[in-house]
Amino acid sequence: MKDLMTADYLEKEDATALILAAKRRMGLSWESMAEKIGMSPVWTHSACMGMNAFPREKAEALAALLDLPETAVPALVESPTKVWAQTVPTDPCIYRFYEVVGVYGPTLKALIQEEFGDGIMSAIDFDMSVTRIANPKGDRVEVKMSGKFLGYNSW
Amino acid sequence: MKDLMTADYLEKEDATALILAAKRRMGLSWESMAEKIGMSPVWTHSACMGMNAFPREKAEALAALLDLPETAVPALVESPTKVWAQTVPTDPCIYRFYEVVGVYGPTLKALIQEEFGDGIMSAIDFDMSVTRIANPKGDRVEVKMSGKFLGYNSW
Amino acid sequence: MKDLMTADYLEKEDATALILAAKRRMGLSWESMAEKIGMSPVWTHSACMGMNAFPREKAEALAALLDLPETAVPALVESPTKVWAQTVPTDPCIYRFYEVVGVYGPTLKALIQEEFGDGIMSAIDFDMSVTRIANPKGDRVEVKMSGKFLGYNSW
Amino acid sequence: MKDLMTADYLEKEDATALILAAKRRMGLSWESMAEKIGMSPVWTHSACMGMNAFPREKAEALAALLDLPETAVPALVESPTKVWAQTVPTDPCIYRFYEVVGVYGPTLKALIQEEFGDGIMSAIDFDMSVTRIANPKGDRVEVKMSGKFLGYNSW
Amino acid sequence: MKDLMTADYLEKEDATALILAAKRRMGLSWESMAEKIGMSPVWTHSACMGMNAFPREKAEALAALLDLPETAVPALVESPTKVWAQTVPTDPCIYRFYEVVGVYGPTLKALIQEEFGDGIMSAIDFDMSVTRIANPKGDRVEVKMSGKFLGYNSW
Amino acid sequence: MKDLMTADYLEKEDATALILAAKRRMGLSWESMAEKIGMSPVWTHSACMGMNAFPREKAEALAALLDLPETAVPALVESPTKVWAQTVPTDPCIYRFYEVVGVYGPTLKALIQEEFGDGIMSAIDFDMSVTRIANPKGDRVEVKMSGKFLGYNSW
Amino acid sequence: MKDLMTADYLEKEDATALILAAKRRMGLSWESMAEKIGMSPVWTHSACMGMNAFPREKAEALAALLDLPETAVPALVESPTKVWAQTVPTDPCIYRFYEVVGVYGPTLKALIQEEFGDGIMSAIDFDMSVTRIANPKGDRVEVKMSGKFLGYNSW
Amino acid sequence: MKDLMTADYLEKEDATALILAAKRRMGLSWESMAEKIGMSPVWTHSACMGMNAFPREKAEALAALLDLPETAVPALVESPTKVWAQTVPTDPCIYRFYEVVGVYGPTLKALIQEEFGDGIMSAIDFDMSVTRIANPKGDRVEVKMSGKFLGYNSW
Amino acid sequence: MKDLMTADYLEKEDATALILAAKRRMGLSWESMAEKIGMSPVWTHSACMGMNAFPREKAEALAALLDLPETAVPALVESPTKVWAQTVPTDPCIYRFYEVVGVYGPTLKALIQEEFGDGIMSAIDFDMSVTRIANPKGDRVEVKMSGKFLGYNSW
Amino acid sequence: MKDLMTADYLEKEDATALILAAKRRMGLSWESMAEKIGMSPVWTHSACMGMNAFPREKAEALAALLDLPETAVPALVESPTKVWAQTVPTDPCIYRFYEVVGVYGPTLKALIQEEFGDGIMSAIDFDMSVTRIANPKGDRVEVKMSGKFLGYNSW
Repeated sequence: MKDLMTADYLEKEDATALILAAKRRMGLSWESMAEKIGMSPVWTHSACMGMNAFPREKAEALAALLDLPETAVPALVESPTKVWAQTVPTDPCIYRFYEVVGVYGPTLKALIQEEFGDGIMSAIDFDMSVTRIANPKGDRVEVKMSGKFLGYNSW
Repeated sequence: MKDLMTADYLEKEDATALILAAKRRMGLSWESMAEKIGMSPVWTHSACMGMNAFPREKAEALAALLDLPETAVPALVESPTKVWAQTVPTDPCIYRFYEVVGVYGPTLKALIQEEFGDGIMSAIDFDMSVTRIANPKGDRVEVKMSGKFLGYNSW
Repeated sequence: MKDLMTADYLEKEDATALILAAKRRMGLSWESMAEKIGMSPVWTHSACMGMNAFPREKAEALAALLDLPETAVPALVESPTKVWAQTVPTDPCIYRFYEVVGVYGPTLKALIQEEFGDGIMSAIDFDMSVTRIANPKGDRVEVKMSGKFLGYNSW
Repeated sequence: MKDLMTADYLEKEDATALILAAKRRMGLSWESMAEKIGMSPVWTHSACMGMNAFPREKAEALAALLDLPETAVPALVESPTKVWAQTVPTDPCIYRFYEVVGVYGPTLKALIQEEFGDGIMSAIDFDMSVTRIANPKGDRVEVKMSGKFLGYNSW
Repeated sequence: MKDLMTADYLEKEDATALILAAKRRMGLSWESMAEKIGMSPVWTHSACMGMNAFPREKAEALAALLDLPETAVPALVESPTKVWAQTVPTDPCIYRFYEVVGVYGPTLKALIQEEFGDGIMSAIDFDMSVTRIANPKGDRVEVKMSGKFLGYNSW
Repeated sequence: MKDLMTADYLEKEDATALILAAKRRMGLSWESMAEKIGMSPVWTHSACMGMNAFPREKAEALAALLDLPETAVPALVESPTKVWAQTVPTDPCIYRFYEVVGVYGPTLKALIQEEFGDGIMSAIDFDMSVTRIANPKGDRVEVKMSGKFLGYNSW
Repeated sequence: MKDLMTADYLEKEDATALILAAKRRMGLSWESMAEKIGMSPVWTHSACMGMNAFPREKAEALAALLDLPETAVPALVESPTKVWAQTVPTDPCIYRFYEVVGVYGPTLKALIQEEFGDGIMSAIDFDMSVTRIANPKGDRVEVKMSGKFLGYNSW
Repeated sequence: MKDLMTADYLEKEDATALILAAKRRMGLSWESMAEKIGMSPVWTHSACMGMNAFPREKAEALAALLDLPETAVPALVESPTKVWAQTVPTDPCIYRFYEVVGVYGPTLKALIQEEFGDGIMSAIDFDMSVTRIANPKGDRVEVKMSGKFLGYNSW
Repeated sequence: MKDLMTADYLEKEDATALILAAKRRMGLSWESMAEKIGMSPVWTHSACMGMNAFPREKAEALAALLDLPETAVPALVESPTKVWAQTVPTDPCIYRFYEVVGVYGPTLKALIQEEFGDGIMSAIDFDMSVTRIANPKGDRVEVKMSGKFLGYNSW
Repeated sequence: MKDLMTADYLEKEDATALILAAKRRMGLSWESMAEKIGMSPVWTHSACMGMNAFPREKAEALAALLDLPETAVPALVESPTKVWAQTVPTDPCIYRFYEVVGVYGPTLKALIQEEFGDGIMSAIDFDMSVTRIANPKGDRVEVKMSGKFLGYNSW
């Protein structure tokens, strides 16, 4: 970690390592970190993991909050290359979402196209939230995705 | 289709074929069909595609609505075997959801576990909706998933 | 073919079969068919293959041009499910494009992001052309793709 | 980096690392680097990434521009072995091009063969550009590929 | 090992390495370790391998039993990301269980659904044991799995 | 079905089709069928699906119970070729067992070898049961597997 | 076969079936067929299998030689879509060539680039022969491939 | 490199590294190295890459030519384990050979079996050459493979 | 079957179907069939399955033994294309042999090369037998493979 | 190597490295090592590679023979996890055995079941030998496998 604090240049994964160490040391949650930099928890975690690019002022806010070295800022701002190693995820918590896409994918497509015409939900102009919903039969996880509808053009 | 109307026994995909033909003939939407049998559009489409099992009274309501033969009811009620052929879906509208799981899967896991402890969102005790959200910069698709939190037990 | 001409209902692949038979019988090229319905050759071929949805008036124009039965029109208008069977295409003419994506994919990403910021070229709000470029050292194939830039949002 | 500056021998990936460090230090863009060595941005980025071989005088021009050690020149000149690790790319910006090949591959083949006869577009005698096209509905990415037509011979 | 004993922070695999070294040094079996912390052998081994999360008091009990450093406790308590590298396991002892799922999977499904209705056996609210059953024709391995039945909901 | 009743020769899948039709017609459960031929439900379902071979007298008992044609008996008695099409099963009820093998496979191996020495649980000299266990927090599925321990020999 | 002789339209695989039937009936070898139409055996077999396109006069010569219906000619002339189903061929006679590419692929690349500079051997402007070479220690198969060298361009 | 020059024992890849360094330092080509040890360029390159075993006297000749340490000789003589990492090679120069096997594999089989009877061309009792063939339309790469015919036996 | 008895031409799989029907009708074992045509059981079964080519006189002997139509003879004599569909076999009886290759493959290689030098055991000039070995602890299956050693040549 | 000689604890691969170094230093063959510890060459090589577990006295005999450190003994005795990285082996010497399983797998199954009834050859209660058989047409490799027959039970 010390080396990363003083290195000339940081890769995105170096910034992630510094963030995780600081989060642990300061006892912060993702939710509180997100609130302090004025962003949502989903986006904040994802950007800290190197799967989204920080706007400069948010990178600076995070660096200030967590005492990151200055070199972390350009690393956080850089466009990431999004790579996932498992075609089918094995972790049960992630697999269930893969299963939902397998089971309900054609349904999502049919209803989107019934409502909007031929096109897709953007995964780029996109946001998402995770919320706990109290329920007497057991609390529920609510995941809300919102993406701009993009219609196919014909030419 | 005529053969299916008079056959002794129907498989789930036969029932799907009859539903699609009737839907076309009667000019119905998934949303209106769902409303008429008192279920949600996501569940209705999915069950009509053979990816969920109908409660008997809902199968009968659908059969009445669409003039399906009696033999369709047990086919709709039967437990489905859920199979999807493409490990990575190619249709762009479905692929975008796969991409969301690839990019945000670890984030969903981290936030669920920060909020609830070690466990998952159930994909069985689960429901989902698709809604159009008007937006001056282009309407948006909102997908809301809700699943019961299931905590790991230790023993 | 006769059966398809008189069937109550056509799937997208039935419409494709009828189009190919008429094209052969009438000795038409894709380019001339495209011109006659006022669309581009790339889009016209793709939509005839069932990989894009026809606007209704274009479907009617094509049906008139090729003497397709009325039932072909709704099939052509319907949203397609885009499926390709080979993860890596084997036909040399198609493989070379796959190779271009493998070799130059990171370059396309770097230059798009240098010019536009973090985001992608849309494959939905998208068009493409294929042109012959005369060249004394051997004529060249020019493929021009144009897609709207979509920037990632942060939230 | 210091070690690479003084090593007896550099591999292609060492040269890439030195180029990236110099580009960062000198605040250059790919476009400006390409202009300064008199090559196109697509080719320049690709060759710097080790996916194409530099002509000697271009390697020397780049080394002069970026103060690379002499040992970088033979590494840049050497023929690369082109390897990509993901059969299906996961990064959304690159995936969209893969999707274009999946959706429009048979169309590209049909139109090339209608125009030129049986054959392919070369991916070796090939060039490509990326251009920003201003558009009131949102600027567009234009990718133009040009490859020599190669006809199959029969013997 | 010495480094792990004094490091500021341990990953789950570091904790596993320390546990294995202590187990070896102290000549303990999984069964005796499980008994001493008041948990079952299956759960204990799995959690020590980093495939399940320890409740804090069990992590402390294990740390006390094996003289682990304090830093091992938070590592053991953390939610694991469950990853297995082989889609089809090659080790014969594990493969046989994969084979059982391949051969008897549809049977398990049919009997669960005959008895309970449409749904699944939870792999989250789940426990398992391994027992030796003496048998004159050769002792037998008995594996008993128990998971809560989860019924699909319709909505 | 009529053709199968009078054919000269039946394949195993023909026998399966006849069994399923008779089961439906007679309103039998797998459990009752198993009881009537004096075998367990797991084995009976599996053998009826063509994944196990019937002893001749059991095949005859089943044929008598369900009024199968004589030709079904040799088909049921024949050794099956056990084939499953999905390397990773997609149906959620079957996938959960695959997940259990992924998560707990190394644990099963470690405990079997701690107790028995180097070897495996046989999947051939093997039996299994599925039982409903009443539970106030939700009934549970209990799956019990028993296989002969087979020790590796050295030579 | 009779149906194919009188059909309005033939696909490439129909032409292949007619060729194989005529070859059998007339007792011809590939070598003699090739000689009679003035082409090489490799190209002739490949084109008859639908993996290459016939020039019109060669298609007519083959149709005359084998008494194929007129409709076979356009099928033979059409550009083929080259598809092979096995990523790794299983037939031992074909696998050995795959093995040669695996073992000697980097060697072929190194020697081509040492001799010609950066580039490839074309598989399009390409021909191949198979010859028997008498040898006292056992006759040998000689395969000779010849393809135009294509140099990468830089731009 | 210095370490390899003085190590007690060398693996085959160590010998390869020493050969490549010496080749560079001495400015040799594969062709000249092959000539100097009296072997062909294809075999020499392949054996230097660790894909074939050197006869002892050839290993000694190479060691003398390149001033390799004595320990390189047994490494070069050892039987290699031939491993290639990419099921489908991505480098265009190597892929074209894979494509040739895909397109012409069944043709090679048909002609070998027409000429020799049922059997294969050996890839073990095998040799290969690469030659430049001058051609006014562009020089060509000629690859000649020769392998002993091996007939299947029946017993 | 009747159609196959009178068809003009049979494919290898048609011959297999006729052989299986006759074997069933006549109550023969593979061992007795093999003995009657003077070949081994392994080769006979394999050739009947279409995985080896019959010498003409053996095809005629088999046709005479089983009352096959004349057209079966050329089908049996033809060179087969050896295809297996499962990269990893699922049937337990076949999988165990795959497992043996996985576990002992490097051992077979090491011992063959220690004894014979660099080379392989031929799978073409090859024979195999399966024998029952009585054993008080349970009879054993003995599989004996014998293949000609083929040494690599250097050139 | 020196580190391994004095380390507190050895993994199985450390023991393998020490064995290979000693074998080299002492100029031993697998056959002679096997003879000296009173085991077969196949088992000895396999266990030295870490694919089988040594009985304690055999591990001690080997350690004495090769001057291994004491810590090697428990590593050799431990149960191995059998992993092979290549689903389809690429080394020609090992691939040929994979090919034999692909071609003859169904034959082995048919003959085993004809002779023994429904069941398999054990790969656990298993032994194997490799022998050179002199033959005037070229010496042969004889591989003999012997495994206990295991019959499926029904319950």
